[in-house]
Amino acid sequence: MKTLGIGLIGSGFMGRCHVNAYNSIASIFKVSQKPVLKMLADASPELASQQAKALQFEQSTADWQELVQHPEVDVVDITAPNHLHHPIAIAAMNLGKSVYCEKPLACTLAEAQEMANLARSKQIPTLVGYNYLQNPLMRTAREIVQSGEIGEPIAFRGVHAEDYMANPLSPYTTRLDASQGGGVLYDLGSHIISLARYVAGPIQEVLGNLTTVVPERPSGDTTRLVHVDDQTHCLVRFENGCVGTLEASWMAWGRKMHLAFELTCTKGTLVFNQEQFNELRLYDANQKAGRDGFKTLLSGPDHPHYSAFCPAPGHQLGFNELKVIELLQLLRALEGGDACWPDFTEAFEIQKVLEAVKLSSEEARWCSPQSMITN
Amino acid sequence: MKTLGIGLIGSGFMGRCHVNAYNSIASIFKVSQKPVLKMLADASPELASQQAKALQFEQSTADWQELVQHPEVDVVDITAPNHLHHPIAIAAMNLGKSVYCEKPLACTLAEAQEMANLARSKQIPTLVGYNYLQNPLMRTAREIVQSGEIGEPIAFRGVHAEDYMANPLSPYTTRLDASQGGGVLYDLGSHIISLARYVAGPIQEVLGNLTTVVPERPSGDTTRLVHVDDQTHCLVRFENGCVGTLEASWMAWGRKMHLAFELTCTKGTLVFNQEQFNELRLYDANQKAGRDGFKTLLSGPDHPHYSAFCPAPGHQLGFNELKVIELLQLLRALEGGDACWPDFTEAFEIQKVLEAVKLSSEEARWCSPQSMITN
Amino acid sequence: MKTLGIGLIGSGFMGRCHVNAYNSIASIFKVSQKPVLKMLADASPELASQQAKALQFEQSTADWQELVQHPEVDVVDITAPNHLHHPIAIAAMNLGKSVYCEKPLACTLAEAQEMANLARSKQIPTLVGYNYLQNPLMRTAREIVQSGEIGEPIAFRGVHAEDYMANPLSPYTTRLDASQGGGVLYDLGSHIISLARYVAGPIQEVLGNLTTVVPERPSGDTTRLVHVDDQTHCLVRFENGCVGTLEASWMAWGRKMHLAFELTCTKGTLVFNQEQFNELRLYDANQKAGRDGFKTLLSGPDHPHYSAFCPAPGHQLGFNELKVIELLQLLRALEGGDACWPDFTEAFEIQKVLEAVKLSSEEARWCSPQSMITN
Amino acid sequence: MKTLGIGLIGSGFMGRCHVNAYNSIASIFKVSQKPVLKMLADASPELASQQAKALQFEQSTADWQELVQHPEVDVVDITAPNHLHHPIAIAAMNLGKSVYCEKPLACTLAEAQEMANLARSKQIPTLVGYNYLQNPLMRTAREIVQSGEIGEPIAFRGVHAEDYMANPLSPYTTRLDASQGGGVLYDLGSHIISLARYVAGPIQEVLGNLTTVVPERPSGDTTRLVHVDDQTHCLVRFENGCVGTLEASWMAWGRKMHLAFELTCTKGTLVFNQEQFNELRLYDANQKAGRDGFKTLLSGPDHPHYSAFCPAPGHQLGFNELKVIELLQLLRALEGGDACWPDFTEAFEIQKVLEAVKLSSEEARWCSPQSMITN
Repeated sequence: MKTLGIGLIGSGFMGRCHVNAYNSIASIFKVSQKPVLKMLADASPELASQQAKALQFEQSTADWQELVQHPEVDVVDITAPNHLHHPIAIAAMNLGKSVYCEKPLACTLAEAQEMANLARSKQIPTLVGYNYLQNPLMRTAREIVQSGEIGEPIAFRGVHAEDYMANPLSPYTTRLDASQGGGVLYDLGSHIISLARYVAGPIQEVLGNLTTVVPERPSGDTTRLVHVDDQTHCLVRFENGCVGTLEASWMAWGRKMHLAFELTCTKGTLVFNQEQFNELRLYDANQKAGRDGFKTLLSGPDHPHYSAFCPAPGHQLGFNELKVIELLQLLRALEGGDACWPDFTEAFEIQKVLEAVKLSSEEARWCSPQSMITN
Repeated sequence: MKTLGIGLIGSGFMGRCHVNAYNSIASIFKVSQKPVLKMLADASPELASQQAKALQFEQSTADWQELVQHPEVDVVDITAPNHLHHPIAIAAMNLGKSVYCEKPLACTLAEAQEMANLARSKQIPTLVGYNYLQNPLMRTAREIVQSGEIGEPIAFRGVHAEDYMANPLSPYTTRLDASQGGGVLYDLGSHIISLARYVAGPIQEVLGNLTTVVPERPSGDTTRLVHVDDQTHCLVRFENGCVGTLEASWMAWGRKMHLAFELTCTKGTLVFNQEQFNELRLYDANQKAGRDGFKTLLSGPDHPHYSAFCPAPGHQLGFNELKVIELLQLLRALEGGDACWPDFTEAFEIQKVLEAVKLSSEEARWCSPQSMITN
Repeated sequence: MKTLGIGLIGSGFMGRCHVNAYNSIASIFKVSQKPVLKMLADASPELASQQAKALQFEQSTADWQELVQHPEVDVVDITAPNHLHHPIAIAAMNLGKSVYCEKPLACTLAEAQEMANLARSKQIPTLVGYNYLQNPLMRTAREIVQSGEIGEPIAFRGVHAEDYMANPLSPYTTRLDASQGGGVLYDLGSHIISLARYVAGPIQEVLGNLTTVVPERPSGDTTRLVHVDDQTHCLVRFENGCVGTLEASWMAWGRKMHLAFELTCTKGTLVFNQEQFNELRLYDANQKAGRDGFKTLLSGPDHPHYSAFCPAPGHQLGFNELKVIELLQLLRALEGGDACWPDFTEAFEIQKVLEAVKLSSEEARWCSPQSMITN
Repeated sequence: MKTLGIGLIGSGFMGRCHVNAYNSIASIFKVSQKPVLKMLADASPELASQQAKALQFEQSTADWQELVQHPEVDVVDITAPNHLHHPIAIAAMNLGKSVYCEKPLACTLAEAQEMANLARSKQIPTLVGYNYLQNPLMRTAREIVQSGEIGEPIAFRGVHAEDYMANPLSPYTTRLDASQGGGVLYDLGSHIISLARYVAGPIQEVLGNLTTVVPERPSGDTTRLVHVDDQTHCLVRFENGCVGTLEASWMAWGRKMHLAFELTCTKGTLVFNQEQFNELRLYDANQKAGRDGFKTLLSGPDHPHYSAFCPAPGHQLGFNELKVIELLQLLRALEGGDACWPDFTEAFEIQKVLEAVKLSSEEARWCSPQSMITN
């Protein structure tokens, strides 16, 4: 089997998820290239070396440029802080290397646009870590909508709510740094937007309301002012006429992974919640009187990719396995298959929506994601 | 026991609900006045007579003025079409009679204001049929918020979704008549607004998006154009700083009584859905690590008014019993107790919000309910 | 309209439920006889008089025989302690009067048999208060099974679990008195048995395991030994070949009204829980791959009797309304319709099962309910 | 890092699960030995060779004895048919090698006993694949019970229901072969027994009822008679006085992985269902009136082993990750830590219960697992 040299930048939670996907994929999917862990880059030589050993990379470095230029690194995998996504990805693509990048794509729309344009012009396979899209039941949801099984979308209510910043004493982090994209809109809102686009279609207009609940947070011995949103609420209009709301919050006590939506169509409804992501609820308007109701589908081998993990339904996939399906997109694209969903182009579209939500909130008016492009 | 003469105008579903409440209340609550079914008014003498017999009223009429003026009618109960609420209520209050009126209060804000002003100036007990507020667990929800048990409200997501107009062949009805208030915002949106105000507080600003999904509906042998909203989506800001979304739809396939909300506070969260209205979910931020989670409260004798219906928890109250608790508000007010919640004053406040949502949608800008008052 | 004179013996929770049903039924169902509250009997003249006033009976007595013999009492309604069921019912039937009796039918099988025989021989309409059978969705469940929609029953798991005696300091009550039937098997087990028979069919054999968890309970200033079961677990075989388990407990912390079952058939499954009794879950084996799952039916006008209470689905019926449907059985039987389900004959069948469970536990062997009959 | 040579016998679903665990463990847990895939054995040389290549084993064989004797194979991993468990395990242990064996341990109790005795006498670390025990929330459940947080166990209702044989046309397989252990009691009942022992304690007595629903199944062009149970229902008494029921079925339409229990204790209750295995419901008797209810715990870093997979709660583990935690037991035992739960000794105890259930059904009497031992 051919090998595929992996260079990973960043070794936090997401970095380790990616490593696990590289280690697992060949025993789960039939792939023609076996990922080999070539080089790990991290913030310091010591950290990089120690993590490379723990995660069993062949080499380590504190210089991401060295990694990008390493001749045996075929895929540059970016789990580094957001402000590094752009320079690393540009450098890698200029060397013709594939890029697997965590979300959000970049800190500014201009950067995201440059990344998407370069990938397109150089025809480089790219993949972005909106992992919840890779759920077998999310593919099923999309199939149900696109096949017309339940008619056309008319309303979408999308939420991504968690509570990891709900405590006002939760300290200041880079997630609160506006120059890094900052705020819950970028951190969680991007996920629900990715999902809205995936199942309900392109977004035409948004009108947001961003709020900061905790105006300052502890930071070492002092506090720092917060300039980003703790909560985002948003009206949305899709290109196909569907309307609804989008919402993101990291203040939502009790919600741990409440990435949820309800999509009403002209002949039925889908309901989903990532906290029970092996379930999808479906209502079909065409049911017998007295026997109608929402049905709960349990993920199983009849849903895309599930059977690679388990031959029996109801056993449940885990979050980390979504990352394996995500990685599969890239390997398939490298084998000459379809482009990844989501690639840099799609991630750029998502980022336009993020910027439109922000602007619409500042100016209290409907804004179009397409009008966000500056040139 | 003293008797309380009831004059009921309208004998449809809601009229029958009220009758049942009158028949039941004395064996459920300790009240000092026993309701007596004096007179029923309906659209024609035949219908009125037949329904009076079926529902066991002493007399019937096709003239609501006769009913209002009947000397033994103490309470004028209005379940007639929306456009009759105002003239009947005004006539009754001018005779010093109490009024129990179904929602929404009136077809226009000016009418609603006149009704609320007259009730206040004449100190007349009034009650409006926002029945979902009467749920023991809704009172519990309000207590939890007002006591500060879970801190201050920061986000509210409110929905009232049903599917009774989801079929595009569902015929044109007066609910689609803009001159009667018209549209799902008035029909269902008013409920979720009543509830938002009840548990989260007064509303400062809204920004709505009203949409018509089915542009014409069958009407007899022909079709009629629809000029009202099938769906309402709305951003909201409360006076206390809480923000969120409000939504109403009668197009929501599969949803039969999805009057639901999630209220996030600074120290916990409440989740409710009227389709399981004997349950309230509560998350308290102050729980032991590894043992924390949403808790499901089942309605029982520890919640206000439940024990009058049943001494044991978990037995469940039904929708019709909420009407009995509603009626209790009026009897208590007549005995000199607190004003009803909701009375005409509160219903007028709700109607201001309805009008603000409508205007904000037309003008695509934030509108304040308080600015809706024309004089 | 003809009137039907009601004589009620006992005015506790159940007595009041019955009164509410008498007061409500004529405005809910089309009936040809209007119940009139003639006489209330209770333990002392004072109590009877006070309760008669509160519940608006015309007369009161402390002597149930006076009530039974009252010429205007047509229906004798027994909500008195279990040991009085037999003498009162016999006396009433000997006068040709209909009897509405709370469950369990009697304290001994011999008494139950005598009651059932007398009712049959004199062709007297009788009704027993196994109220959970009256739920519209329970009728629907029975219809689904009997029509063969989901094939033939093969397994039944039935539970009635509550927690009202879970605290070992909950005091001794007559429910713990073996001479009154005593124990959770009689108190709650009788409900799940009534339901098992209703949806899955007659029971052929049982093998029980009765346990006493709290061996003595407070009783005034002292304690009393407990000789009855706090928990019953039981294997069961139905006549149709279906097998399963039955269970009753009043020690089940957190369960308030967990009367629940899962009925597996050869082509589908039904799941029910009384704590959400407006829902019935249905799995049909004949579903499209990838779109199969349990469906949640919400009670609505397509289910028997629901529409009398409400024209719209999802609004929910309450426990007290089951009592109104129960009472309807009797009025219909008196009008010459079908016998009530459950009448004394059915209640006697249930009681045979209770006795078989008890005996099977004592003797650690399978016992047949039919073999319990002593003559 | 030291390496640990793995020899795997069998490459079906379970074999592949194990391979994935070997590949993943070092990037998830800190372990001192890295598993190396030395040799794969399967039914034919061709199959073994092909699967070895696909799963990336160094060598392959059709002779399990060759694998067992391979000097670099340190752990013999058995996912072969049940009747091979015993000879392979004995051979491996006689060479001093660790054994990781899928459940059930053996086809007969005598074999199981020999395996357990040999492991004990030679002090060999062994591990059996009752994977559902490895769920972080199952460990939490056990902690809650053992710490006395909710008092002492008094009732246990355990079920393992699936529907993979519910269709009477599902063909005959070795699972239906009585000489291989055969029947749903062995296949699924063993899981719920493993779990009953894990959370509620050792079992004193059982009384089973085994039924065959489909008496013959298709087998190639003909049919074969079925001599094993399609359904098992069982009464159970634990050594600590807890009582309840156990149930297994592969006929349960709609149930895909319904391994579920409710454990009532003297001060609270636990409810679990493997179809949502990242949730555990907990009721604590010590709650404030009006605010009491079942609480849903979501698995997260506060529960054992979860944080190795993910630093954030609510993300969900998948079934395959339970296998990684399972494997960890063996690596820890090899490092000199505690014995695995479950090891051969525990699996032998489980098998005694299986045999007691079978015998008790045949003889219609209570049987003690401890009395099943023949010498």
